[in-house]
Amino acid sequence: MTIFLSPDILETKTLSPEESFHCAKVLRMRQGEEVQIIDGKGTLFNAKIAVSNSKKTLVEIISAIENFEKRDYFLHIAIAPTKNIDRFEWFIEKAVEIGVDCITPLNCRFSERKVVKMERLEKIVVSAAKQSLKAFLPKINPITDFADFIVQTTENQRFIAHCYPTPKFPLFEICIPKKGALVMIGAEGDFSEQEIQTAENQGFKSVSLGAGRLRTETAGVVAVNTISILNR
Amino acid sequence: MTIFLSPDILETKTLSPEESFHCAKVLRMRQGEEVQIIDGKGTLFNAKIAVSNSKKTLVEIISAIENFEKRDYFLHIAIAPTKNIDRFEWFIEKAVEIGVDCITPLNCRFSERKVVKMERLEKIVVSAAKQSLKAFLPKINPITDFADFIVQTTENQRFIAHCYPTPKFPLFEICIPKKGALVMIGAEGDFSEQEIQTAENQGFKSVSLGAGRLRTETAGVVAVNTISILNR
Repeated sequence: MTIFLSPDILETKTLSPEESFHCAKVLRMRQGEEVQIIDGKGTLFNAKIAVSNSKKTLVEIISAIENFEKRDYFLHIAIAPTKNIDRFEWFIEKAVEIGVDCITPLNCRFSERKVVKMERLEKIVVSAAKQSLKAFLPKINPITDFADFIVQTTENQRFIAHCYPTPKFPLFEICIPKKGALVMIGAEGDFSEQEIQTAENQGFKSVSLGAGRLRTETAGVVAVNTISILNR
Repeated sequence: MTIFLSPDILETKTLSPEESFHCAKVLRMRQGEEVQIIDGKGTLFNAKIAVSNSKKTLVEIISAIENFEKRDYFLHIAIAPTKNIDRFEWFIEKAVEIGVDCITPLNCRFSERKVVKMERLEKIVVSAAKQSLKAFLPKINPITDFADFIVQTTENQRFIAHCYPTPKFPLFEICIPKKGALVMIGAEGDFSEQEIQTAENQGFKSVSLGAGRLRTETAGVVAVNTISILNR
């Protein structure tokens, strides 16, 4: 069934101009057709098109499920954007599908990309949330310098994944389920030794994501799935 | 360090014409430079360029590690190719990075793609194996009809992942580590009920890959990573 995102649907009963256009002109939906709507805050609505209009489509809400498939754990991934933006966009889509609450693009010492297009990334988050029926819309933060990011983190459990052969715990073993977690993933050139030291000084634990070398975006998806399995 | 694939390097001490061209003309490597070579059968060689030649580059082998990072479990993924071939190629790359032995593209009832370009997929496997230092080259089989595939499977443990609300086990719980496993993943429209029945009649166990709807290629990566974590 077609899914729309509308944060204020309960109050306005109206789709946004963008969603209305998509509904009326692209999908050519008509009065009476059933749709699903997510508000991005956890509620999944079943609704009917009341008035199909390319600027202001009106809906009639039939039913609502609050906290739809709410996960019982919080996950924040901070990750250096890849040089190839497609790869980073793949990661975002997969992270949303599997389960993530927050993504922060990180500007690290060896980052190969210093600029990301927020609007584009937000579109991908919305699209993936709709496609995978996530009623809670994950948040994507602006790209943040490592040094600034490190000191503003508040999660219970904070991990930094890297490839140096220093003492590390497997993420799956050390993360405690049902609690908030933040996992930081570096660029293709890894974090710098100084960044790792800084993180550990701030209370981050160094982790591995399994044997072998993973591309940045693969490491990101592995981290998201690892935490998902841990919290099964 | 630059990595080449050469199945017969120990006998010939020579890179293939393709790898030789890449070495001499693209990378412009010179005599004395160190390289790594995988033979696809588990051995990782350290070597030096002896003669840089665009058709027949000669190397001097310095050292070899057999069974380099050999995984202690066998994994075969049979998966319906996605309509969008980028997504399928993405899955193959990630599966190789994380750890897979064999991939079979499956032609199912609701498959959206009936034809795949083997040469292209093999290139992706080789590229991903080199990039992630996999000395064992995963095998990619030709696209196979579901009915034919089902009866020729030989793995110890065989699973079919689907979205129907029938009795299913979480893959992570039911798969026994350190043993061979086959996981089948259907198209966007899932397997047909008949395909699932056929599989179960053949001894396959129905599994889930977590809550929520995953795209085919995401399900593939989730399955590969789930088995990887299980076998940690």
